[in-house]
Amino acid sequence: MAKQLDPESVIPLYHQLKEILKERIESGEWNPGDQIPSENELRKRYQVSRNTVIKALDDLVREGLLHRKQGRGTFVSLPKIEHSLTGFYSFSKVLKAHGLQPKDVILALEKTCAKPSIAKHLQLKEPFDVWALQRLRCAREEPIILETSFIPREWVPKIEQKTLERCSLYDYLEREHGIFITRAKEIFEPVLIRDYESQYLRVPTGYPALLLDRIAYDGKDRPIEFCRSIIRGDRCRFYTELL
Amino acid sequence: MAKQLDPESVIPLYHQLKEILKERIESGEWNPGDQIPSENELRKRYQVSRNTVIKALDDLVREGLLHRKQGRGTFVSLPKIEHSLTGFYSFSKVLKAHGLQPKDVILALEKTCAKPSIAKHLQLKEPFDVWALQRLRCAREEPIILETSFIPREWVPKIEQKTLERCSLYDYLEREHGIFITRAKEIFEPVLIRDYESQYLRVPTGYPALLLDRIAYDGKDRPIEFCRSIIRGDRCRFYTELL
Repeated sequence: MAKQLDPESVIPLYHQLKEILKERIESGEWNPGDQIPSENELRKRYQVSRNTVIKALDDLVREGLLHRKQGRGTFVSLPKIEHSLTGFYSFSKVLKAHGLQPKDVILALEKTCAKPSIAKHLQLKEPFDVWALQRLRCAREEPIILETSFIPREWVPKIEQKTLERCSLYDYLEREHGIFITRAKEIFEPVLIRDYESQYLRVPTGYPALLLDRIAYDGKDRPIEFCRSIIRGDRCRFYTELL
Repeated sequence: MAKQLDPESVIPLYHQLKEILKERIESGEWNPGDQIPSENELRKRYQVSRNTVIKALDDLVREGLLHRKQGRGTFVSLPKIEHSLTGFYSFSKVLKAHGLQPKDVILALEKTCAKPSIAKHLQLKEPFDVWALQRLRCAREEPIILETSFIPREWVPKIEQKTLERCSLYDYLEREHGIFITRAKEIFEPVLIRDYESQYLRVPTGYPALLLDRIAYDGKDRPIEFCRSIIRGDRCRFYTELL
C-alpha cells in the first residue's frame, strides 16, 4: 500500500491523503475514540500543505469516520449504525442490537389529508384522511433520523400521544389496535441534508443523507404506514445479502 | 393538499414550493420530458421571490427530478433507474430491463497490491496480488457509475482487456475462467460526489451519490471480487422488500 503521496498522480493530493487515513481506520490501526495526529503532524508526515490536510479531514468528518472536539483535536468516530436490509427491521430494534438506547421525540401529531402521491401508496380514497406523525429518532440522545409517518385514519381512528411516547409505533399499533406489521417495501436514494432538517439532526446543511420511503403492510396486506425518513449518512450505513 | 405557500409556516418557502412541484411530478400531473413553467411564471403563480424559485428548482435538479436545457427551460427528467435489492443483480441487466443500452468504458486495468482493508474482504494472503479494474458504466452514453473492482490474481491470473470490452465482467469470468458468481454482500452509504469523480460522472462536485461496496462470491464460496462504486443519486434509486 502506498504510504506516501504521489504528486505526479492525476488523483488530487487531498484525496490520496484521505484514502491513506481511511485505510488506517478501516484496517483497525486506529480505533474508535483514538485521537489522530494533529494537522501539523500530518502536514509534516505527508509533506503536504495545511489546506490539503484540512480538505482531507473535512471529507472524513463529513463521511462520519472522524469527529472534531473543540480545542482538543480530531478523533476516530464510533462505527456507523448498520441496518440490515435482509429482513424486516424496526429502528428501535436496530439500536438495541447495537447496545444503544433508542429515544423518540414526537415533534408533531395531527390529523391531515395526505398528498395524492402518498394516498396512492396507502390505497386511500378521498378525502385521504391520515395521521401525520413527525418524530426525531435518537440513539443515546443523538438525533439520527427525522421521519414523518402517514397512517390511514380508517384503520387507526385514534392515536394517543402520551401512550405512543412510551413505546414504539409498531408496538402501539399491535397493543391498541390489534394491527401487526408483517412486511414492508422500501425505496431509498442519497440526498443532501437541507436547512430545515439540519436544525433537528444537528449536522450541517449539505451533509450526505439517505431519503428512505417505507410502506408497511399488516397481515391482511393493508398498507398501514407510509413513512418518509431522512437518515444521517455520517452515522448510518446499510447492508444486504443478494442471492 | 396545500396548493399555496404558507408564509407563516416554520418550513421555509423554497422547501414548501419544492414539495408542491415534486408532488406535481410524483402524482403524474407533469410527465417525463414535459417543460415546466418558467421561473417568472412560478414566481407569479406562488407569489414568491425569484431566489425562492431558483433555490427550489436547484434542489429538484440536484435530486434528479428536473433538468435544465441551456436557453430552453426546465424539464421533467426520466424516472430514476431502479435497482432491486431483492435478489442478485448485475448493472448491465438492470439497464437492459429498463430498455437502456449498457456501455462500459475501461479506464484502467492493472496488476497491483490490494490495501489491507480490501485484502481482508477478499481473504487474501500477502502480497495481496489483485487486478484493479476501473470502469465507467454508462446507460445510453450517459455515465452513471464509477467503479473499481479488485479481483484476486490467484483465481483470475489473466484478464484480456480486448475481450472484456465486449462483454460483462461476470460473463467474462464464466466464459474464460469457469467462475460463476452466485451471491454477493453489499454495504452502502450516502456520500457526496468529489472533484475527481465529478469529471467522469459529469455531475457537479457535492451532488448526492451512493457509495456501494460489493463482495461477490462464486459457487465454491470464494470471494472473487471486491467492488467499490460511486453511483449517481440523481439518476438511480434502490428498492427492496422486507419480510
